Amino acid sequence: MDSTTRIEQALVSAIRHSEQPGCPPKLVAAMRHAVFPRGARIRPRLCLAVASACEDRAPSSSTAAAAAIELLHCASLVHDDLPCFDDADTRRGRPSVHRAFGESLAVLTGDALIVLAFQTLARAAVAAPARLPAVMLAIGDGVGVPFGIVAGQAWECEPQADLTEYQRQKTGALFSAAAMAGAAAAGSDPEPWRALGDHLGEAYQVADDLRDAVEDEATIGKPVGRDKALGRPSAVEAYGLLGAVDRLRGLSERAIASIPESRGQAMLGALVRSEMQRLLPRKLAQQAA
Amino acid sequence: MDSTTRIEQALVSAIRHSEQPGCPPKLVAAMRHAVFPRGARIRPRLCLAVASACEDRAPSSSTAAAAAIELLHCASLVHDDLPCFDDADTRRGRPSVHRAFGESLAVLTGDALIVLAFQTLARAAVAAPARLPAVMLAIGDGVGVPFGIVAGQAWECEPQADLTEYQRQKTGALFSAAAMAGAAAAGSDPEPWRALGDHLGEAYQVADDLRDAVEDEATIGKPVGRDKALGRPSAVEAYGLLGAVDRLRGLSERAIASIPESRGQAMLGALVRSEMQRLLPRKLAQQAA
Repeated sequence: MDSTTRIEQALVSAIRHSEQPGCPPKLVAAMRHAVFPRGARIRPRLCLAVASACEDRAPSSSTAAAAAIELLHCASLVHDDLPCFDDADTRRGRPSVHRAFGESLAVLTGDALIVLAFQTLARAAVAAPARLPAVMLAIGDGVGVPFGIVAGQAWECEPQADLTEYQRQKTGALFSAAAMAGAAAAGSDPEPWRALGDHLGEAYQVADDLRDAVEDEATIGKPVGRDKALGRPSAVEAYGLLGAVDRLRGLSERAIASIPESRGQAMLGALVRSEMQRLLPRKLAQQAA
Repeated sequence: MDSTTRIEQALVSAIRHSEQPGCPPKLVAAMRHAVFPRGARIRPRLCLAVASACEDRAPSSSTAAAAAIELLHCASLVHDDLPCFDDADTRRGRPSVHRAFGESLAVLTGDALIVLAFQTLARAAVAAPARLPAVMLAIGDGVGVPFGIVAGQAWECEPQADLTEYQRQKTGALFSAAAMAGAAAAGSDPEPWRALGDHLGEAYQVADDLRDAVEDEATIGKPVGRDKALGRPSAVEAYGLLGAVDRLRGLSERAIASIPESRGQAMLGALVRSEMQRLLPRKLAQQAA
């Protein structure tokens, strides 16, 4: 089964566990709205690619880890879109959860997806729990406090934030978690995979800042120009447009160089290169060439 | 070490893990504000009492389960107090988290505490993961969807809700989770302990409705009269004041009768009786006597 199918099936099954007679129907509808239809699923694909590079022999654990990572990512998008943060009306080209279901249900949808991530890990680990703590710790570090995405988002509430630290926590942390959880789920030491996630995460944040600055809403499916409008730190503000493109390229080269020696080293390098090509806005790729 | 000390030490240690140089300081301050100073800690005490009744021999797992339950309870209070739900200015006699730190940090504080609950379980389980999945599943069921507290809260967003189902999910589910996680952490079958948590949770919800109806803000440390003001389903609205008192007594008797035969059966029965006495508003106790 290919990675995309494994990820989608695991997410469908996770949401299905949540939908039973006697549960509040709007909440489940909002959870489904937050998770489907699929985005790029880049974090869970990274998780499975690393697990596979580590010669994964018990894929139920890595599949659950990948699904958990994506559920947590979706949860963070739902909460980031709330009126008290980005106040975004659209996401992936459709109404954001709070626009479609109201603010209360959006708060609860994020909460429910966070819990569902850990329920998914637990369900997959009942028969073989040995790897569960390491997978949970990698994922918890990527999401929680002190240095996960929740911490990263909280820097927006501080009077001053270091751009690198802010982006590393807000975006990089979940990429590191994806890479490290993939290794842990495959029974490998997660630590050597941290750098790959760190560099990739920073590269994604730079790409996101570039798209926010130069794309239109129809192309990327969410409002643009938000960083400037909200006075948020961004790589474009810090380095200029072409400086940010240079930074993106440097980061993807460092990501590739950091991949530990493994069976899947070349495959992972190719994956990184093709993702970076996909993410760089076309008009900038032409301008910078 | 007594239960209260075990619970407080575990919570202090969990928050300390979150506070490291490079993390956003306001977020950690808000997490601390949400968890300390302590409330009644009734759910974690129930968890430890059941673990002890099940002849707990590895208390690190039950202590972590108790702390996780309390962190999740605190998270739910922070989110329930938000302007889009109860819009409560005070909690435990102090400003609610969103009043003290702003709405954005309140959303993130709840998220961070949910994740911290699972991080705490994982940290305690690294050396002995065998019981982790059962503990997580009990806790996940009590918090998540379809039937946990997040689902219960979501019934407030539905046009119609069944009072029993709403209260069972919003309050009872975490009590069941506390009892069942205590049993699971001690290596026992959690299922026989579900009824104790169910009855106790419903009793607590009835007691909460009674206090909301007849107490003043200074006595219970949070705004009163909210159920009526917000048109929410409540036991007082459904059964009248004295009818609700009768219901509370019946539920606590059923809770006591449901305690499985165990070494701690008598101790648990006494705990339930003293808690119910503590929770029944004095003026109603006199009136009903």
